[in-house]
Amino acid sequence: MNDYDRGYAQFTQMVGEDKIEGLVARFKSVCPDFEKEVVSVVGGRIWTRGVIDLKTRSLCSICVLASLGRDQALGLNYRMAINNGARIDEIFEAIFQVAVYAGFPAAWDALVKLEAVLKEMDGEN
Amino acid sequence: MNDYDRGYAQFTQMVGEDKIEGLVARFKSVCPDFEKEVVSVVGGRIWTRGVIDLKTRSLCSICVLASLGRDQALGLNYRMAINNGARIDEIFEAIFQVAVYAGFPAAWDALVKLEAVLKEMDGEN
Amino acid sequence: MNDYDRGYAQFTQMVGEDKIEGLVARFKSVCPDFEKEVVSVVGGRIWTRGVIDLKTRSLCSICVLASLGRDQALGLNYRMAINNGARIDEIFEAIFQVAVYAGFPAAWDALVKLEAVLKEMDGEN
Amino acid sequence: MNDYDRGYAQFTQMVGEDKIEGLVARFKSVCPDFEKEVVSVVGGRIWTRGVIDLKTRSLCSICVLASLGRDQALGLNYRMAINNGARIDEIFEAIFQVAVYAGFPAAWDALVKLEAVLKEMDGEN
Amino acid sequence: MNDYDRGYAQFTQMVGEDKIEGLVARFKSVCPDFEKEVVSVVGGRIWTRGVIDLKTRSLCSICVLASLGRDQALGLNYRMAINNGARIDEIFEAIFQVAVYAGFPAAWDALVKLEAVLKEMDGEN
Amino acid sequence: MNDYDRGYAQFTQMVGEDKIEGLVARFKSVCPDFEKEVVSVVGGRIWTRGVIDLKTRSLCSICVLASLGRDQALGLNYRMAINNGARIDEIFEAIFQVAVYAGFPAAWDALVKLEAVLKEMDGEN
Repeated sequence: MNDYDRGYAQFTQMVGEDKIEGLVARFKSVCPDFEKEVVSVVGGRIWTRGVIDLKTRSLCSICVLASLGRDQALGLNYRMAINNGARIDEIFEAIFQVAVYAGFPAAWDALVKLEAVLKEMDGEN
Repeated sequence: MNDYDRGYAQFTQMVGEDKIEGLVARFKSVCPDFEKEVVSVVGGRIWTRGVIDLKTRSLCSICVLASLGRDQALGLNYRMAINNGARIDEIFEAIFQVAVYAGFPAAWDALVKLEAVLKEMDGEN
Repeated sequence: MNDYDRGYAQFTQMVGEDKIEGLVARFKSVCPDFEKEVVSVVGGRIWTRGVIDLKTRSLCSICVLASLGRDQALGLNYRMAINNGARIDEIFEAIFQVAVYAGFPAAWDALVKLEAVLKEMDGEN
Repeated sequence: MNDYDRGYAQFTQMVGEDKIEGLVARFKSVCPDFEKEVVSVVGGRIWTRGVIDLKTRSLCSICVLASLGRDQALGLNYRMAINNGARIDEIFEAIFQVAVYAGFPAAWDALVKLEAVLKEMDGEN
Repeated sequence: MNDYDRGYAQFTQMVGEDKIEGLVARFKSVCPDFEKEVVSVVGGRIWTRGVIDLKTRSLCSICVLASLGRDQALGLNYRMAINNGARIDEIFEAIFQVAVYAGFPAAWDALVKLEAVLKEMDGEN
Repeated sequence: MNDYDRGYAQFTQMVGEDKIEGLVARFKSVCPDFEKEVVSVVGGRIWTRGVIDLKTRSLCSICVLASLGRDQALGLNYRMAINNGARIDEIFEAIFQVAVYAGFPAAWDALVKLEAVLKEMDGEN
């Protein structure tokens, strides 16, 4: 299996079969090659590496994204974290590390985004 | 137990009994009140919260610090991560999430720092 | 008085008696423990330290938040700065330091946020 | 010609005669002196320096702004890049460097902003 | 007086007559035009604006630089802050705002730099 | 040719035949898989994309790295920029865009690093 296919399968597992097409369409609409690189590199080469479980990898990712204030990827990673088995209270703890190490305001922005994503997900069910 | 004592005990567990005095002395030498706040808040109020285990909390912290390039706290957190049970190959995986989400150069700087800390720790034994 | 009560009193003084409940409710709605930590640590342990006056502390805070682009905390800190006695033209000067030291675009974003907060405050009176 | 006039002429060339008044009005409305400094320093002292062509300077600027997530200046710089002769596929390549050096999420946010600006520009014609 | 001369006078006041030549020489050695822009823009156009006093402006600058981890400018600004009348304990308070709003690690790095600058200054007398 | 081989060839062209082994050894020593990913992804998938020439891609990269203060990658990219045909005065102009868009201190740090790299390169001939 090549990087792209491995990444597509990985993202499908993490966002759900009903959401994968919407996700890749969003990436493609802003730049087709960007979709190819995100799926192949982020999904295919990195998320598939193993060694640590997907839930831990998700909490790590949330910490990077909250620290840097990357809004869209943070939203996506909250969804993937939940699908990867992270409970909301576990996500909160990752964000408390952000609070002391990147500042309380970074944590606040991240928590507001989490609230929005949880509301969205509620509306989908 | 108050925040400071809880934090002192927590840091002692994470850096080792032989290193805790050196660590608090380093904090105090730059600003006595800073030592009090770091031990009480970072150690006493946040690291002691539970819910996720200390190893996961360490990997999360490393991701925040590597993303922001905070050199000294990163060095300290590598040591605490290892004492909290993280293997080097698990730390590598946290840094791979940094590579794709904060850029390969942030990961490179973090890996060079890790190498330096491991060398230091080797010299201590 | 414990950290939380000290922080609650401090924030009450800085946002006004009519706004404090709304503020803590906002923090609690995203994560109850986050409210406890923000009020106790940011409010109770740090804002109450003295040595520099509250207006100077506000201008310093605005500089941190504008540099890092932390939108929500910046909005809150503009309100607290004004209550702490900062005039608009003094806030502008803090932002000019941001312009040369963090880049003109960081200052631009901060000024647009200030305009929005001033408009909101106008609508409240 | 003084810095301000040089900057005004430079920005006029880069945003178009029909848009320059709107742009300076936007800067003035948030803070009159800010407009004076942006036009004089950013426009008059730096954009006019020569040595590299304006298209290259635009791609460089996009890279800075996308890395730091400065939304408004990024929007303005996309417009100026296109007026300076950058094709969309060239802007994409600048953003791919952002993807690997500042992380894929910074590139994603930048591409979504680009899409919004292109849609706006389409509506203007 | 033009921007450059105003900036040169301003920096002379803030670093001292015995240090100004060394400072401009350092800027020139890395890039002559950079010296011209720093002195004219940062010194001549911004530091001279008034409205807030130089000590407050220094504390604001320290907050920007500590948040972003800009090491060299931070070192220079500590010296200027002290010449502008800031006491060490006032600088500490500015850094405590950095601790909660940009994270304790940013404050730690800033305090270590402050210690180094104070040691240097001690050696000069 | 696979991603790794394409990346190895690309980096060889950009750092020179006499330096490529040292470079990959540096990446491998901190983490073998990191070397594989940097060469394959950064070198093989992104630097080889074309559309903009390598000199422009280098100036863009320098802007990202200077804005974020990524020291090691910045040093490497200065060398590659020069091999890709960028003159020092063209690199200066990229850094002037950093000065106004990410702050003068980011530009200062970048210029000091450039001076160090140029001195190193001088010593090699």
